[in-house]
Amino acid sequence: MEKKGVVILGSTGSIGRQALEVIENLSDRFRVVAIAAGTNVDLLAAQAARLRPARVVIAEKRLYGDLVRRLEGYPGMEVLSGEEAVADSAQYPGADIILNAIVGIKGLVPTLRALCAGKTVALANKETLVAGGELVMKEARKSAARIIPVDSEHSAIFQCLQGQDISSVKTIHITSSGGALRDCPLRDLASVTPEDALRHPTWNMGAKVTIDSATLMNKSLELIEARWLFDISPGDIKIWIHPQSIIHSMVEFKDGALLAQLGMPDMRLPIQYALTFPERLPGIARSLDPATMGPLTFTPPDELRYPALKIGYYACRAGGTMPAVMNAANEEAVKLFLAREIGFLEIVNLVEKVMEGHNTAVVESADSILSADSWARRKVREYLGHR
Amino acid sequence: MEKKGVVILGSTGSIGRQALEVIENLSDRFRVVAIAAGTNVDLLAAQAARLRPARVVIAEKRLYGDLVRRLEGYPGMEVLSGEEAVADSAQYPGADIILNAIVGIKGLVPTLRALCAGKTVALANKETLVAGGELVMKEARKSAARIIPVDSEHSAIFQCLQGQDISSVKTIHITSSGGALRDCPLRDLASVTPEDALRHPTWNMGAKVTIDSATLMNKSLELIEARWLFDISPGDIKIWIHPQSIIHSMVEFKDGALLAQLGMPDMRLPIQYALTFPERLPGIARSLDPATMGPLTFTPPDELRYPALKIGYYACRAGGTMPAVMNAANEEAVKLFLAREIGFLEIVNLVEKVMEGHNTAVVESADSILSADSWARRKVREYLGHR
Repeated sequence: MEKKGVVILGSTGSIGRQALEVIENLSDRFRVVAIAAGTNVDLLAAQAARLRPARVVIAEKRLYGDLVRRLEGYPGMEVLSGEEAVADSAQYPGADIILNAIVGIKGLVPTLRALCAGKTVALANKETLVAGGELVMKEARKSAARIIPVDSEHSAIFQCLQGQDISSVKTIHITSSGGALRDCPLRDLASVTPEDALRHPTWNMGAKVTIDSATLMNKSLELIEARWLFDISPGDIKIWIHPQSIIHSMVEFKDGALLAQLGMPDMRLPIQYALTFPERLPGIARSLDPATMGPLTFTPPDELRYPALKIGYYACRAGGTMPAVMNAANEEAVKLFLAREIGFLEIVNLVEKVMEGHNTAVVESADSILSADSWARRKVREYLGHR
Repeated sequence: MEKKGVVILGSTGSIGRQALEVIENLSDRFRVVAIAAGTNVDLLAAQAARLRPARVVIAEKRLYGDLVRRLEGYPGMEVLSGEEAVADSAQYPGADIILNAIVGIKGLVPTLRALCAGKTVALANKETLVAGGELVMKEARKSAARIIPVDSEHSAIFQCLQGQDISSVKTIHITSSGGALRDCPLRDLASVTPEDALRHPTWNMGAKVTIDSATLMNKSLELIEARWLFDISPGDIKIWIHPQSIIHSMVEFKDGALLAQLGMPDMRLPIQYALTFPERLPGIARSLDPATMGPLTFTPPDELRYPALKIGYYACRAGGTMPAVMNAANEEAVKLFLAREIGFLEIVNLVEKVMEGHNTAVVESADSILSADSWARRKVREYLGHR
């Protein structure tokens, strides 16, 4: 069997590293043809030395010399640097699948380039669909390229939709653990520290995503992703607090049947499924024993505790550049919270203020999105300066 | 759109009546071309007067005159009687789908006739697959006719398998409410009455099925059905006590993902899905609100409480005529329990004794099955006489 060629963009991040575990376990099926990272030159060089991809890219140009030096003993690898080299790797000729695990808005252009080249995109970059959903789905339709979600929630929905007609879907139910502060008294939320908010009950993820789980902004982002990925109206997407993180999401059909995907909270499962789809192969993700999965519960999210949700629905309905603005403002606000410059409740407040000051514009190209993104980041800093 | 022609065998039973509710709600999609019942001539005549099918059949020949008399005011309907007329209706020329909702081993031959004629069979008759699984699946393969399960558990599994490759299945998890006596102290089981055993916690079904739920013999039957329907080895099928009856069954794949189908305990959902498959249409089944579905729990069944399970796995592995013997002995034993001639614990004891005395034979034809069935029933009465 011909091995599938995989490009991993963001190979040194949490998803990238787990993807390499998955691929090394299925080395008879996959070969890594290119890897790219932002700044972690140590890990990138170690991965390159181990996997010997045809191409290795560091996005941060000033680290190019460093990377070249570390790979001197490994001839035959093309070593590049810069964002353009990252984006170009998304259309690498020898690649069948591009795993886009870049964190942030920088992931948008590589997704567009991969789709334009007709490559299958295993998508872990949230910004691609949150900020660029309409544009990206248009590009995917044009080239008939496939986007397979890597997010556990969207992977669950995608799995439940196999063999089903999207027109028979009534509601998509996205589950959330409720985050680290689910049980924190409301009156204490103003004074929680980054350490408190980073104690996620079930998933082990990066800091930004963990804070997004605590505010539930992650569900606002997922709502928008689901809206584009599955072409479903935001009113037909519901969010649930499911503290056990066992049911990763559910699809309710018009006849009343619900399908759900269950599993341990282990990203290696959706990563592997995105790579092997439509096949399923034995993998390394922890398996779920129904006897130990405990009582499964579902409650609607408390609007007072999670004001980020209302904002998410608003951005989703507004469309255009609004979701990009929400996403960028949130990213900046989370940074400020982690740097102890603002309080926990100010994260969502700041995002809302920035959105209130934004005139939604139509998205014509990636540039419209990138400039809305920059505008929102600037606004967050402005508001902060005025306090 | 051309309406699908449906034949309902067993139209006056619980499944048959619910199927008519479903069909009358989707009257723009379906027309009932023939209905057949065992002995309930009152209801059958009323159904015929309302639906005006082309053919009406009463299995019990002595009720023929009665039926003809009741339908005198409705000309143009063909009125027949006898088992052969029932079986012949399974290959009725104007029919696209045969819903086999006959209770008992009499359902076997109609299924075979429908498959032989290339008709889609919406299968609610357990005995078809329990007693005749090997033969029936061979016939289905030969004619490329489709069997769509109506049982809530098998419908759930069938739904979870859409768009999935059966070779990627690792385990099928069948759920059970645990029945009416789930929480009854073990020492009291010997003295429970039919009234106690008929108090099912979640599903509203006929007496035979409700007693089978209390012994868990229903799961032994479902295990054998699943083995044939999905071509999976009994060792890869697990049974769980799930008191809420919300997750109707689950499929675990080789990569570790589980898919589950959830819904209210309402048979109109799987009945409708079997009729509309692969489409899903808005229906009349009660819909499930995740907010009210309460904690969902899963525990392995207690072998002391449910000895019927061990017997089921044994019969499934033995194959040949053994499952038919188990099923027939159980049917007789349940009748005796309901008639207060034996105690609750004697049901499974009797079945086990009859199975111990049976030399498994290869199934050559429907006749091998029917004679194993008769043999087992005779044996139950013999054992009872010797007590």
